[in-house]
Amino acid sequence: MTQTIGSPRNYEDLKRSNTLNKVRKKPPQLSKLKTSPKPNLLITTEAVDQDSIQALSKYARVFSSAGLDEASLARLLPSVDGLLVFFWPSFLSPENLSRMSHLRFIQSILAGVNHIPFAQLTKKVRVCSNAGAYSDEVAEYAWSLLLSAAKRVVDFHNAVKSEQWTLRRMLGGKEVTILGDKTLGILGYGGIGSAVARIGKGFSMKIYAFSRKPVREKGVRSFQGDKGLLTVLAESDAVIASLPLTKFTDKIIGADKLATMKKDAILVNIARGELVDETALYEHLKSNPDFRYATDVWWYREGKESLKTTHPFFEVPNFIGTPHVSGPSGLATGKPVKFAVENVIRFLRGLKPRNIVNPAEYLATDRQEY
Amino acid sequence: MTQTIGSPRNYEDLKRSNTLNKVRKKPPQLSKLKTSPKPNLLITTEAVDQDSIQALSKYARVFSSAGLDEASLARLLPSVDGLLVFFWPSFLSPENLSRMSHLRFIQSILAGVNHIPFAQLTKKVRVCSNAGAYSDEVAEYAWSLLLSAAKRVVDFHNAVKSEQWTLRRMLGGKEVTILGDKTLGILGYGGIGSAVARIGKGFSMKIYAFSRKPVREKGVRSFQGDKGLLTVLAESDAVIASLPLTKFTDKIIGADKLATMKKDAILVNIARGELVDETALYEHLKSNPDFRYATDVWWYREGKESLKTTHPFFEVPNFIGTPHVSGPSGLATGKPVKFAVENVIRFLRGLKPRNIVNPAEYLATDRQEY
Repeated sequence: MTQTIGSPRNYEDLKRSNTLNKVRKKPPQLSKLKTSPKPNLLITTEAVDQDSIQALSKYARVFSSAGLDEASLARLLPSVDGLLVFFWPSFLSPENLSRMSHLRFIQSILAGVNHIPFAQLTKKVRVCSNAGAYSDEVAEYAWSLLLSAAKRVVDFHNAVKSEQWTLRRMLGGKEVTILGDKTLGILGYGGIGSAVARIGKGFSMKIYAFSRKPVREKGVRSFQGDKGLLTVLAESDAVIASLPLTKFTDKIIGADKLATMKKDAILVNIARGELVDETALYEHLKSNPDFRYATDVWWYREGKESLKTTHPFFEVPNFIGTPHVSGPSGLATGKPVKFAVENVIRFLRGLKPRNIVNPAEYLATDRQEY
Repeated sequence: MTQTIGSPRNYEDLKRSNTLNKVRKKPPQLSKLKTSPKPNLLITTEAVDQDSIQALSKYARVFSSAGLDEASLARLLPSVDGLLVFFWPSFLSPENLSRMSHLRFIQSILAGVNHIPFAQLTKKVRVCSNAGAYSDEVAEYAWSLLLSAAKRVVDFHNAVKSEQWTLRRMLGGKEVTILGDKTLGILGYGGIGSAVARIGKGFSMKIYAFSRKPVREKGVRSFQGDKGLLTVLAESDAVIASLPLTKFTDKIIGADKLATMKKDAILVNIARGELVDETALYEHLKSNPDFRYATDVWWYREGKESLKTTHPFFEVPNFIGTPHVSGPSGLATGKPVKFAVENVIRFLRGLKPRNIVNPAEYLATDRQEY
């Protein structure tokens, strides 16, 4: 009943597996479709391992888009109850999606769900993010960016390499930021935010959490609303953004917010590039050389996350940028797939799945990322 | 009785204040020398602030070498009981040192004491390191190196900058090391080592401590002796070296030890370059591309720590090097001076000072560093 699904080698493979161009497997036994009492689950990614597929098969008839030709897919779509996607597959065009009259559930393997075409979904479809699945790995990565910026590791390494720094050169005190006893602001206190905080306590930092719901946790001061955000930004020595990208958080850090931050603060973006206004940030970095921005996530160009920026950030010494490797480093552990599969099983068993998102909060754009 | 001592601007200033070339202040009232019941303390660095000098003056007659000409110094030396040095001053040549018949105590503001000429000291001289004074700051720096190496931040930043990496490129799993639930080996469990461990617990790492004395601490496995060192090296995913450089630890990590480590382990050196055999390390990095070495400390050339290496480490992608800024970043907090001064006061009050080192463990070389 299931298709053999190989391990993906790279994101391009994963992407190909999201299309129908490469049908490599035999078609499913569609004849059984009508007689089975089990719901139908369509998996649109090769990232799901065989053990997981076996586990899912106890509760559903499992189909892989990689095993279906166009005609089989057309027959299957109206009977699909659930979708397990890595990111939104291109073959699920608005037209194909409109045929999925039975669709009730979508599970994303990506942590964020802003790749899902919410505007085209009916109200009965529950969409679940994979929040929490990457938390520890992404939190570690956030700390690598924060410490690289705080200790100027990239700068110093490149300076020694190019013989532009000498031993015994006295530090002015601005080059290296000491984190102990300083304040760490965490924007968004979900799985990543709370893992970031746990590590921050090891560094003896005071933790300020900005979140929708109050945080009741020892050693964490909780802030809500616009005023709370301004307080966290103004009082923090380092800020880590781990917010989902929604219509409320889009460009939430603009020129006005940057202006409230300490002149020598460090801002780390581990969530989504678009949380920060690109031009405002560039101007801020240029006019505040002690301020530092370190990011693993990038702005959109033509609806897609892109390493090509409007401004030459790499010419600014107080900028550190890495090519969105925090999530993929978590994916390599296998945990995010297991996490997503467990949630699909929850849905299939008639239980309430975790991480149901509110569609009203998500932008109906074609922004793509992972 | 005290000299006005300005704040140092850079290490070169500190170094000049260690010589007699620049005597800028009036000579001390040497006539009072014989009548005072207080011991005489000579400070050979301008790093000590006025408040500290005031505090010391309650218990000693305080002299600054920056305020003494050659003749005054010659008269003072035989009556000096204690020395507070940043690093060993060049004016205290073997000849001048031999005149210091009253010398009983030397306090270093540097954490390590391998700059002290132990071979030329009589047995009655107690030498105190400043271990612990920089612990939190150096531990933070060690973590910045470990995370930069684990997450390949320098590599990734430079790759995006030079357009050599693309988004959605799948990670092989070797590029980024996940630290959670992995084993962190800490070589030397003094102030720095235990601060490194505290942070490591926040990362949910298992802590293996290699130290002279057994460590009894929750969440820490303690190892001693040669066999213990081999176990720590063999079983750790990341190792942070925070050992003092003594005749026992000189090149303690050679080819044999490197060979016992995991092929994809990370070795961080936050202590002294000479703990690691330079050529053996270079060969190891070349033949084990997944192994990573990140250091803030460098090997000696002609007795002095130098950024010039015998091998071209910066051409090896699995090497990260910063120009010995971890200690100076701690110095910028003012804490190390306060720490050293408190210990001098302990000595002056007739109490047992902390951090008395065993001269037999130290090499009688002219190696200089900070």
